Amino acid sequence: MKITILGAGAMGMLFGGYLSRNNQVWLLDVDAARVEKINAEGVRIREKDGSCQTFRPAAVTDSAGLPQMDLVVVFVKSMFTNDALARNRGLIGPQTYLMTLQNGAGHEAKLLAFADRAHVVIGTTQHNSSVIENGMINHGGSGPTAIGLLDGRGEALVPLAEQFSACGLACSVNSDVKKQIWHKLFTNTAASSLTAVLQVPLDFIAEDPHAHGLMERLCREAVAVAAAEGAAFDAQAVIDEVETVCRNAKGGYTSIYADIKNGNRTEVDTISGSVVEAARAAGIAVPCHEMVVALIHALEAKARLGVK
Amino acid sequence: MKITILGAGAMGMLFGGYLSRNNQVWLLDVDAARVEKINAEGVRIREKDGSCQTFRPAAVTDSAGLPQMDLVVVFVKSMFTNDALARNRGLIGPQTYLMTLQNGAGHEAKLLAFADRAHVVIGTTQHNSSVIENGMINHGGSGPTAIGLLDGRGEALVPLAEQFSACGLACSVNSDVKKQIWHKLFTNTAASSLTAVLQVPLDFIAEDPHAHGLMERLCREAVAVAAAEGAAFDAQAVIDEVETVCRNAKGGYTSIYADIKNGNRTEVDTISGSVVEAARAAGIAVPCHEMVVALIHALEAKARLGVK
Repeated sequence: MKITILGAGAMGMLFGGYLSRNNQVWLLDVDAARVEKINAEGVRIREKDGSCQTFRPAAVTDSAGLPQMDLVVVFVKSMFTNDALARNRGLIGPQTYLMTLQNGAGHEAKLLAFADRAHVVIGTTQHNSSVIENGMINHGGSGPTAIGLLDGRGEALVPLAEQFSACGLACSVNSDVKKQIWHKLFTNTAASSLTAVLQVPLDFIAEDPHAHGLMERLCREAVAVAAAEGAAFDAQAVIDEVETVCRNAKGGYTSIYADIKNGNRTEVDTISGSVVEAARAAGIAVPCHEMVVALIHALEAKARLGVK
Repeated sequence: MKITILGAGAMGMLFGGYLSRNNQVWLLDVDAARVEKINAEGVRIREKDGSCQTFRPAAVTDSAGLPQMDLVVVFVKSMFTNDALARNRGLIGPQTYLMTLQNGAGHEAKLLAFADRAHVVIGTTQHNSSVIENGMINHGGSGPTAIGLLDGRGEALVPLAEQFSACGLACSVNSDVKKQIWHKLFTNTAASSLTAVLQVPLDFIAEDPHAHGLMERLCREAVAVAAAEGAAFDAQAVIDEVETVCRNAKGGYTSIYADIKNGNRTEVDTISGSVVEAARAAGIAVPCHEMVVALIHALEAKARLGVK
């Protein structure tokens, strides 16, 4: 298969590297230094067991002259999705699958401007990866990848999933992948975000009545956005589920809690921020999500500036 | 004058003590131990210069048998206003002035169930006071007290203001006291509250764009509630004013910031909480205020439980 990965960040390099085992892969990134480094030294992936493998996908800053692809995978930051697709629309023909495995929800709305409903592939993956340096990543965790079409009928995607699996990225087609994306998102957007704001472990969200009330508000907002996107959930069931996750995580700290504590930039834009973006697109008010995003960005700035 | 003060807390003791110089004052409180102590040892007020004075108002747990008053001043916590008035309505006759100097806004709605518009007196005071022990307070700061009627016409209150001034509580009648109350509240509810949540000094709210955005949302909500209460403000002017206060307070920490930092209970219920209460009464949505109140209560609980 001919595959272009948009965005040679941590996840783009991981998927681009692995898929290049059996496919012709281009990694496309606007960062010329990164592209040069990948072309010179390959994509180097450090695995959990300490081993390191090098893959040799092509890296380019520009898609001019490339053929139409069988698959284009979007791995840029959500705010750049539209730009990246617009600049590289020549890669997308009527038979090209256009896939997003980006964190958060609502990405499909952007993809639908560049491919029809039968070719927009959404999904969720449990792989995680972080950049060590240009061209080199740490593959911190593995797990299943699930993909599907927007209408749920995904038989046509089976060969794609098999190709991913054959390359070491265990993948299945899921008829309810949209619901799965939201399920993954609820705990992150309604509880993990609060652990960052309040600087508490997850179980505090289940135990403290005020924190619990905030979690409920965030769940209800997210459920309303999911409904507008065609994924119906019972709000109380979602609240109960998030509460259970929090309660079972006794003493568990989230990565976004640690990011704030350690003065790092968080992923809030891809999590709660994606709910805000999807809500705007759907014309739904999500004031609590907007506040959480702003509070976390303010806390990032506080840490960056050393304010006490 | 015959005066009853409802609530023998820090402010109730201060005003009850001072007013007892020239008037017959009853301090009414549900706490029998406190009442007994005041009757045994008087109200002792430690002044800023270190001196201590003792006043001898009567203290009672119950208003049974007391005559109708010339003035009833409400100094209970806002959530107990209604109860306190209902239980002591016998003190309030057609000529009785019913006054609130409680922090926050929207108290007059409760008072209007017990007195007519010509006898409900609202106001704001710059005195502050804290309880050292039962019957003893520290008078931490002094400043003018302004009172007025709801319709702004306050000539009838001049003798009342003069009586306060004669007792050492400098007081004037203000035709726009409602606006003054809201002015005092805007900075507290839109900026001080955020310094507690984010644990930052006031100038951070002016400087950081995300914190500034949150302050703007809170100002707009508060302005909408003020408008529903008949006090019209220009939202942008309020935002600019709050921003100026924050900018001028370079490195300034608020008391609510310190309360959270030191694990003390904050005054959030009388500040942002009073806006939430007034908003509910007016049927206005204030999700950002509700979040701020819940976040601050969660942070209080975090400190109380020693969660890190």
